[in-house]
Amino acid sequence: MLDSSAFDAFALRWLPPLEAEMRSVLGSRQTPYQPFYGMMNYHMGWLNEDFQPGNFSAGKRIRPLLVLMACQAVGGDPEQAIPAAASIEILHNFSLVHDDIEDGDEVRRHRRTVWKLWGVPQAINAGDGMFALSFLSMTRLAERGVDPAIVVAALDQFSCTCVKLTEGQYLDLSFEERLTVSVDEYIQMISGKTAALLAASLSIGALVGGASDTVGDALYRFGHNIGLAFQIRDDILGIWGDPSVTGKAAGNDLLRHKKSLPALYALEHPEVGAQLQRLWSYTIGNKQLHLAMDLLNKSDARTFAEEKLRIYHEEGMRALTDALGTQALSSPLMGLADGLLARQT
Amino acid sequence: MLDSSAFDAFALRWLPPLEAEMRSVLGSRQTPYQPFYGMMNYHMGWLNEDFQPGNFSAGKRIRPLLVLMACQAVGGDPEQAIPAAASIEILHNFSLVHDDIEDGDEVRRHRRTVWKLWGVPQAINAGDGMFALSFLSMTRLAERGVDPAIVVAALDQFSCTCVKLTEGQYLDLSFEERLTVSVDEYIQMISGKTAALLAASLSIGALVGGASDTVGDALYRFGHNIGLAFQIRDDILGIWGDPSVTGKAAGNDLLRHKKSLPALYALEHPEVGAQLQRLWSYTIGNKQLHLAMDLLNKSDARTFAEEKLRIYHEEGMRALTDALGTQALSSPLMGLADGLLARQT
Repeated sequence: MLDSSAFDAFALRWLPPLEAEMRSVLGSRQTPYQPFYGMMNYHMGWLNEDFQPGNFSAGKRIRPLLVLMACQAVGGDPEQAIPAAASIEILHNFSLVHDDIEDGDEVRRHRRTVWKLWGVPQAINAGDGMFALSFLSMTRLAERGVDPAIVVAALDQFSCTCVKLTEGQYLDLSFEERLTVSVDEYIQMISGKTAALLAASLSIGALVGGASDTVGDALYRFGHNIGLAFQIRDDILGIWGDPSVTGKAAGNDLLRHKKSLPALYALEHPEVGAQLQRLWSYTIGNKQLHLAMDLLNKSDARTFAEEKLRIYHEEGMRALTDALGTQALSSPLMGLADGLLARQT
Repeated sequence: MLDSSAFDAFALRWLPPLEAEMRSVLGSRQTPYQPFYGMMNYHMGWLNEDFQPGNFSAGKRIRPLLVLMACQAVGGDPEQAIPAAASIEILHNFSLVHDDIEDGDEVRRHRRTVWKLWGVPQAINAGDGMFALSFLSMTRLAERGVDPAIVVAALDQFSCTCVKLTEGQYLDLSFEERLTVSVDEYIQMISGKTAALLAASLSIGALVGGASDTVGDALYRFGHNIGLAFQIRDDILGIWGDPSVTGKAAGNDLLRHKKSLPALYALEHPEVGAQLQRLWSYTIGNKQLHLAMDLLNKSDARTFAEEKLRIYHEEGMRALTDALGTQALSSPLMGLADGLLARQT
């Protein structure tokens, strides 16, 4: 049933001009700013840590492709939406640079993180530079003939999304200080931290493509629900994913005490919750992991998470049909959504 | 000669609606985001560290007043420019929150800094929230009937300014790793870190007020040169300021090894440079301070800095006359510029 060929063809056509636009916004500069932009280009996967060109793992560019697909799906020319797509991807990467500092993560995409290489002060500031450049990129829509009123509306949606991202990150950081977090609180957190940017990618693409508010809102709902489903899929893989496929340890999120959806469900469960909470307050090694997995399985946490995922996925597909009618079926958006949810890594 | 009454009357008229706009953008939110916005409101001087209202030192709001004065000076209605003024002040405060982390400063305006109270991860993220809200504030120009093409132009200038701020901060952080920095490099750094935002305050105010590009450019030059003069005045006070007036130790910037303009000039001086460089590589206590002050005085560093200040000030005044003609003399902008440069704290 799954047909990813429409998605693959779209990506093949549009990734090169997208990449060119991002390089034009973030690209290398002359002395004395060369190392400043070098840090950003390192993070984007274009340079090594000595600022020499190379081809490094750079993320899947899902969000900018959503912008361009939404634009095309509503009858617009993706060429016009390229600055918006670049803007969204640069913003996403800014948030990763700061998240890595805030979480103390030393490795991303198999390379040392920006703060680990150049220190926290320079990494905070390089992230701020990318944040600023993401807005500069969005204003470049005007150079492609997009009506100024549309550019302002896109910038308005984009700013609101940035605020939601930081609200979500605030909740995520504050959850670390707490033992229990309710499922509703968790959904609110990932709505800001993960789903808001996916949703905005679609609605901004639709806006640039000339969609009505109704269609734009439906695409936003599609993005929001697919974003939630995507995060929950990530949560399931983080506990039950096959290490030979994910490249991470079995039960990786439990070892890291990560309060993902299945864990939160089990921590609140009337039968196993108290026991899991005691376990949670110590270092979880391989011995404790076995017990934790048993408790999770007893609580049906996986079934609960899979049911949630199914509901958000269905709601997303309904929104896509609201937006595109029968064309939804053949849209690369459908292929991308199914691909995201079927993934094993 | 100095007439500050036009400035005082302007501030009295426009600070209340400016403050109301900023509170509307950054104001307190409901659970669960109350502490997130609470951190921002604490930094703005509206709340104490328990998030209770109070009246704390909050900065002089120079930049937003420049926006409104420029708008009025070119014949516009400052009321329309309020969102731009709020945006610039929120951006300025975002940059202070991040600078405090990057510099490890524990106190600002006699209160503990955000990172000192709530930790580095939350402080980085609260700063990011303010950064996002500064853009959201700028898009609110559209709600006051400003033409969308003007709003896009303002957002474009604003984004470029944010990039310059981070470039300047990159240089400032990288100078800390070096023993000597040339005067030209230093001017380049403060052009980004200090002068760019003052210049943008004026040109964005002019833009919203409907000024021609020629007038906008002249006001930009005014802001740029006054910004440089302002920073150099700060540098002179940081070494020779009267402790009973500045509230800081005598020779404060020397004690902190701060590479300000007079210090850089003396560090490169053919006669005293080598000796000062040796001194610079150790902790400077009260004993060494006496010697350092002697070396600075021998190098005529103060005369050099005062001459630079005078040149930038004159260049700024010339630009103001280019922009406003004979009206420059009675403009509150003149009063503000003179006030900034005459200040003793």
